[in-house]
Parts: sequence; C-alpha cells; structure tokens
Amino acid sequence: MPIQELKKYSSQVKTGQNFSAFDAGSLEDLFQYELQHPRLNRTVKGKLFLREILDLTSMQVSLNRLPAGAAVPFIHKHKQNEELYIFIKGNGQMQVDGETFDIKEGTVVRIAPDGGRVWRNNSSEDLYYIVIQGKDGSLSQDTFDDGIPLETPPSW
Amino acid sequence: MPIQELKKYSSQVKTGQNFSAFDAGSLEDLFQYELQHPRLNRTVKGKLFLREILDLTSMQVSLNRLPAGAAVPFIHKHKQNEELYIFIKGNGQMQVDGETFDIKEGTVVRIAPDGGRVWRNNSSEDLYYIVIQGKDGSLSQDTFDDGIPLETPPSW
Repeated sequence: MPIQELKKYSSQVKTGQNFSAFDAGSLEDLFQYELQHPRLNRTVKGKLFLREILDLTSMQVSLNRLPAGAAVPFIHKHKQNEELYIFIKGNGQMQVDGETFDIKEGTVVRIAPDGGRVWRNNSSEDLYYIVIQGKDGSLSQDTFDDGIPLETPPSW
Repeated sequence: MPIQELKKYSSQVKTGQNFSAFDAGSLEDLFQYELQHPRLNRTVKGKLFLREILDLTSMQVSLNRLPAGAAVPFIHKHKQNEELYIFIKGNGQMQVDGETFDIKEGTVVRIAPDGGRVWRNNSSEDLYYIVIQGKDGSLSQDTFDDGIPLETPPSW
C-alpha cells in the first residue's frame, strides 16, 4: 500500500540509470503534502515520505513541517530501524524513554529501535525537520572508505 | 581515524540508553566545522559528519554549507552505499553520469552506488544540504510496518 499517492508525483521524478530526483518545493510549502495516517485515522498535512517517490533501498526519509502548538499524540518505538531526527528550523521538545529535552535548528537526535519517542512544537512558529530511518547496524563502511573518486573531471 | 575531532564535541552530546542528541548550532554557523579532507589534502569548512558524534549504526550523514560560487572538484562513486541529497536552501547544479540538472530548496536526489556524482553552487548565495548514505538494499521494512505505537501517552 503506497503511503502517498505516488501517481501524483511519478511524472515529476527525473530518472537516470543510477539516480532519481524530485523537486518537492520550498520547505514552507510542505503543507501541500498530506497523507492518510493509518494510526491517527485522519489526514496529516506537512509530511512527505521520499522512499516510494525515489525508490530508496537503504532508508526511509520524511520532510516535515509541524504547526506551532502541535504535538505528535503517541509515543512510538521501532522493530528494526534506527532513526535520526534533524531539526532545521524552529523550536520544540522531544521525549525519549520519558526524558525530555529541547530541540531547535541544528539539533540532531539518534534513537535506537527500542527508544520510546515523541515530540511536540511548543513554540509560536512552525517546526521543520527531517526524519531518516535505516536498519539498525546495517552500515558497513562509509565516506572515505566507501567512496571512489574518479579521474575524469566534471564536464562543466 | 576519526573524520573530525570528536573530543571537541563528545562532551556536548546528551545520551540516554536509547538515544544520543547533539546541538550542532544554526545552519548559518556550519562554517564553524572543518575537516581535513584526505583527498583534497586541505581543510574543508562547512561540513559536519554525524555518524561518529551520535554513534549512528545504519547511516552516515553530513550537514553542509557550500559557499556561493564553490564547486566540488571531483566526481565520486560509492562501493556499497546509496546516497540521498536533500537540498534545503539555495541553488546549484548536480551532475550524475554526465547528466546535469538544477537543484534548489526542496530538491531530493537518490544516487545508486555506481552513479558518478558531483555538484556545484553556481549561484550568488550559499547552498545548504544534507547528505545521507546507507548500505544499498539494506532496508527491510519501514514506517508503519516497522513502527510500534505505545499505549502510554507522553508525560507532558
């Protein structure tokens, strides 16, 4: 079951043999995206999942705008996946296993699968963030160990 | 070998049994972070890797600010890892396997390991973006399949 109506976006995805690219629009316009949330049984605005649009195979990612004063109404854990929250604008609070701390632009939070997590925007401006999940323990190597520089220079 | 001097940041990381959190500062202040780039053999400013700071196990992630007019000087591929680029402010161009396209706030680009990629900021304002890498094909399930909602409500 697709999380969002992919047909709406598939024609806008630019693809090549080794890539797919999508212009989601400015972050302020994230409210244009909505999904029918299976747990809340209502439409949620301001959340765009990227895995299905881009055919990601190692991660699920969402772009998020949470309105001023809004709170996620339930705590959740994960079965297999680690999550990373990157807050890019605004202020709020996060609670993990009952411990509360402030979040703001530039706060990054890793949560292991078993961490009970919830967050809220207890400020007067909207909160923007990116959530990434990947299978816990799946990364073998990265960056300079995994990258291969090519001799050929860019063509521009 | 640590990519960045972790000792500088480790005392600022808040940790619990199932999480780690770090305040990287506002995005405009990303130039405070620098690393000795092993390929360029010089210091690069405006790139902060998060895996080592947060003990991430499923992904490497960097927060980036690329100055107006700057270009990454080499194309690279990956051995195992898929990459996702999320552009959050500014304008520029990306090239994958020789195909060039524009990037801007809200552009998201998935690149398979074998894609030869490079990007530049050919604008007059700085370009902000997040790069995530995960092991290609490693994700089994996500979001509503992997999440477990708890009955206990948040304590706030």
